[in-house]
This record gives sequence, structure tokens and C-alpha cells, in this order.
Amino acid sequence: MKSNLTIVCTIIICALAMACNNSRNQEIMKADKKELAAIFPKGEKGLSETFTGNAYNIGLVDADSILTTAVGNVYFEPGARSNWHSHPAGQILIITDGVGYHQIEGRPVEIIKKGSVVKCPPNVRHWHGASEDVGLQQLYIVPNTEKGIVNWDEAVPDEVYKSVK
Amino acid sequence: MKSNLTIVCTIIICALAMACNNSRNQEIMKADKKELAAIFPKGEKGLSETFTGNAYNIGLVDADSILTTAVGNVYFEPGARSNWHSHPAGQILIITDGVGYHQIEGRPVEIIKKGSVVKCPPNVRHWHGASEDVGLQQLYIVPNTEKGIVNWDEAVPDEVYKSVK
Repeated sequence: MKSNLTIVCTIIICALAMACNNSRNQEIMKADKKELAAIFPKGEKGLSETFTGNAYNIGLVDADSILTTAVGNVYFEPGARSNWHSHPAGQILIITDGVGYHQIEGRPVEIIKKGSVVKCPPNVRHWHGASEDVGLQQLYIVPNTEKGIVNWDEAVPDEVYKSVK
Repeated sequence: MKSNLTIVCTIIICALAMACNNSRNQEIMKADKKELAAIFPKGEKGLSETFTGNAYNIGLVDADSILTTAVGNVYFEPGARSNWHSHPAGQILIITDGVGYHQIEGRPVEIIKKGSVVKCPPNVRHWHGASEDVGLQQLYIVPNTEKGIVNWDEAVPDEVYKSVK
């Protein structure tokens, strides 16, 4: 009878411990998954003429003649990046989550991540996007929009995208 | 002996269920606590001459003659708000977390929260800050800084701050 009690107790303890552990593992998995923090709606998928991979853009402030500033958010899925492009009055990028790359033409690819701030001067070619494994959430600010907003160029080939040191 | 087995099993089940539940409750409490998501370092405490309560400012982009745009982040603790002020070229606010208030002089107080975008025209008086119970994380964008950045006025009294409908 004593050994029966031991067996029953062991089974109950194991079953409960497994149930408890399973529920905790699910919560840890939820926290660990690489879904980025979204502040804004995802927006519209970027055209394949100007983006490689899946990038989504939502405009937050349209350029007008008073503030002369355009603001928006782009979410790049892992591997996604913009084409080479330039801005007649330059651009500021504010990275709000994830990890990605930014390159000004003629300079090495730089790693950008949550909290990074990037300035690109007027009429200088650059590209930006997510890293290969983690996506990127970034705000863009285009100042002095009376000078123009963006001029798009060619796609960024894999050998350039993957040249990050 | 059978009743002994029942008692022992009941005690084990209760103890394990309580331990499991307790650990889960701690995780839920962690998710519920009202600490806001910080993208940037907290920065410096705002002066009592220009803020009521505890507000912290970090500059992200200093105004220069090329991009002519200043960007920064302000974290307002619950109850904290700016004085009345105006910007010679206007201002854009991007709310990245929390809940707060914004008022343009002569208009009702509006509630702003994570994902809100606010535009204030040039030379128009406004104030912004956290709600009474929840803090506010907000990016500010000041365009065309060659015209000036900010002109500070008087503090926002409680009866104005609490007039939100």
C-alpha cells in the first residue's frame, strides 16, 4: 500500500510539473520570438521596383508647405532592403526596433538597431534595410520637402547587401 | 490508509498548483506594470522653469544648416507636462508609448497615445505631457530650425491640465 501511495504521488507530481512548465515555456517562447514591436499599422507593401524583399510603408505626416517635412514608418522583414536612392534635402532615420544595415555610397555598410539615429546628407546615394535574420522598424524624416522627396535608383545586389563586416 | 493517500495527494496537488499559479501571476504582473517601452536613453531632467513634474529630454539630432531639423525624445512621468510654448516653424510629435495630453491654445485638450501623430503650426501656443496615471514617450521633430526652435511661456495650471473631457 505504501508503494502504491508513492507511485500515485509521483505520477501526480510529474503531471503537474509538466503542465506548469509547459505553460511557462509558451510564455518564454512568446517573449523570445523575433516579432518586432510595432508602434504604427504595417502599411502598404513597397513596390518591387524600389525594394528587394518585403518592406511595408505607412505615411505619418504628408509633406505640406507649412512644415515642409514628410514622416513615415517602414517595416523591413529580414533580408528586405530599399534600392539605392537619394533625397534632394537629405534624410534622418530613427530606428525603433530590430537590426538592419545602412550604407552611404563609398562608405562601408553600417549596422543599425533599436535606438540608432542616421543622417544622410542631401543628394547622397544610400540604402537601408533589415539584417538577414532580424527585421527592422524605422521612422524616416525627410526635411525641406519643397526641394523634393526621393529619387530612386537601382536595386542593392546580394554581394553589396552581404558585405557587412 | 486510503484516506491517508487522499490527504497526501490533495496536499501535493494544492502546493504545486499554488507554486505554478504564483509564477504565472508574477509574469502577468510584469507585463501589466505601467513601465513604458524606452527606445532611447532617458536623458536629462527638464528644468522646472519649463516643465511641471518629471520630464526627461534626450537630443537625437541637433539642428544644423544642412538638414535644418532638430529631433529628440521626451519621457514624461505621469502628471508631468511642458509649459505653454510655441515653435517659430512648428513642431511634429510622434507618440511611441504611453498616454498623454496635447492642447493647442483655444482648442480642447486632446488625448494622445502610442501611435498618435500631432502637428502644431508655426507660432501657435501649445503644451503636451503625460496623463495623470500613465507616462508618455514622445519624439519631437522641429523643422526649419533656421527660423528658431522654441519660445517658452508660463506653466500649465492644474485646472487646464485636468480639463480633458
